[in-house]
Amino acid sequence: MADIWQDAMDHAVAIARRAGDVVREALLDDRMVMTKTSSVDLVTQTDQKVEKLIMQSVKDKFPTHRLIGEESVAAGEACDLSDAPTWIIDPIDGTTNFVHAFPFVAVSIGFSVNKQIEFGVVYSCLEDKMFTARRGKGAFCNGNVLQVSDQEDIRQSIIATEFGSSREPEAVNNIFSSLRSILCIPVHGVRTAGSAAINMCLVASGCVEAYYEIGIHVWDVAAASLIVSEAGGVLMDVDGGSVDLMSRRIVAANSRAIAERITEEIRSFSPPRDDAPPQH
Amino acid sequence: MADIWQDAMDHAVAIARRAGDVVREALLDDRMVMTKTSSVDLVTQTDQKVEKLIMQSVKDKFPTHRLIGEESVAAGEACDLSDAPTWIIDPIDGTTNFVHAFPFVAVSIGFSVNKQIEFGVVYSCLEDKMFTARRGKGAFCNGNVLQVSDQEDIRQSIIATEFGSSREPEAVNNIFSSLRSILCIPVHGVRTAGSAAINMCLVASGCVEAYYEIGIHVWDVAAASLIVSEAGGVLMDVDGGSVDLMSRRIVAANSRAIAERITEEIRSFSPPRDDAPPQH
Repeated sequence: MADIWQDAMDHAVAIARRAGDVVREALLDDRMVMTKTSSVDLVTQTDQKVEKLIMQSVKDKFPTHRLIGEESVAAGEACDLSDAPTWIIDPIDGTTNFVHAFPFVAVSIGFSVNKQIEFGVVYSCLEDKMFTARRGKGAFCNGNVLQVSDQEDIRQSIIATEFGSSREPEAVNNIFSSLRSILCIPVHGVRTAGSAAINMCLVASGCVEAYYEIGIHVWDVAAASLIVSEAGGVLMDVDGGSVDLMSRRIVAANSRAIAERITEEIRSFSPPRDDAPPQH
Repeated sequence: MADIWQDAMDHAVAIARRAGDVVREALLDDRMVMTKTSSVDLVTQTDQKVEKLIMQSVKDKFPTHRLIGEESVAAGEACDLSDAPTWIIDPIDGTTNFVHAFPFVAVSIGFSVNKQIEFGVVYSCLEDKMFTARRGKGAFCNGNVLQVSDQEDIRQSIIATEFGSSREPEAVNNIFSSLRSILCIPVHGVRTAGSAAINMCLVASGCVEAYYEIGIHVWDVAAASLIVSEAGGVLMDVDGGSVDLMSRRIVAANSRAIAERITEEIRSFSPPRDDAPPQH
């Protein structure tokens, strides 16, 4: 059977690369003239510009497809996954990194049909690394096959996570409690790169054994989730059950054993779901 | 006056690049056949091989110069800085990253005369970024001038640090206490890249506003300390006094204000100095 979504995937790769050009140009050109107080505006402008670029190109080429984008959801659009072909877009994953030109900034495009991710594209645009995966056909970086680490001993593992954006004491308590428990398993090291999508591509590349986080959104992880599983990795909820991309909780690991070992140490909590009805 | 150390600096850049080739080859070739249990051997072998390569080339070309290297000190050689011209070498900064092919792995070569760093070379070999600084003549990455961030508001800053290698409860308490206080100033974000030298080059590049750590060694930071100061940054002890490269404590920041603000939150402690007499 021909791959009916190959055309869409080719488009996603091409548009991710174009979007990455816009991100890089914004960093190189606009950052030079950016004042300290306008850095938030630079993010917002570039985020919106890149999301519009991607969304418009998809609408033009695939007018029947649905779209979920970080900026559109922030503007009040619905964020629910139907069975329809749906593009799930994060124009800039790692916005704090983007403001600071910290080298991990990604364009993330996932594509779901019947609530299953069919392909994922993550373009780490400052590193110029194009990560791609097509369901059942493997994961690649710049054309090279990706394979998760074969490390089975968590004490020899590097774990990636993030501190998140909340500075509320309760949230920070949870994050530090989990992090400390994991560090003292003990593991070989902990890294925080500042981008969920790139953390997951680091799992797929075998550079870290696992990544976990509570608070991420579906557009941060949709594309990368397939890249991890097609590279031989596993996805899990932080409580050890099946992953739910709308739940804002994820463990991505090289193996079930390491994923489960991590879930034993995570103090879990449940942020409002991405597909929760809007609060009034 | 001609720059009497330019010849030495040119040699440092050339040998750092050759060393980086060896590191990359070890990762690409040897890692493929590496079993899980032999990863420590790969590090040791490559560390020693690269240090010997650098040291032998320096001895051949500058036979009167002194040498301090991580591997030599580990093997029992003295680690004290005299007024003599001294090469301070870390063959692989970020050894955990190296084992995992995590993209931040550096060759670090500092050069001190009269206890003052005259030049510093940090080659981030997986990124292919050559960071250099000559005292009084600026800092560069692949030939482009480096300039620290002009961000003066710590709440808009990214701070880099590391969890270190100790998993002793007291050490972990100190590290987590400092980290939590800094995160909740609040700052924009915290990143851990796994290499002191590269963290400091990120400060010099303006990608993070500051880096601090207790437990580093002189060979981790000697070269990068000059790269930070020549990019317009400042160095400080974690207690706010003058930096002492043998003290195993450092704050590197874009500005005095941000460095001092961080020192207010660090729970400081003093590991055995690099130049302490050996314990019997």
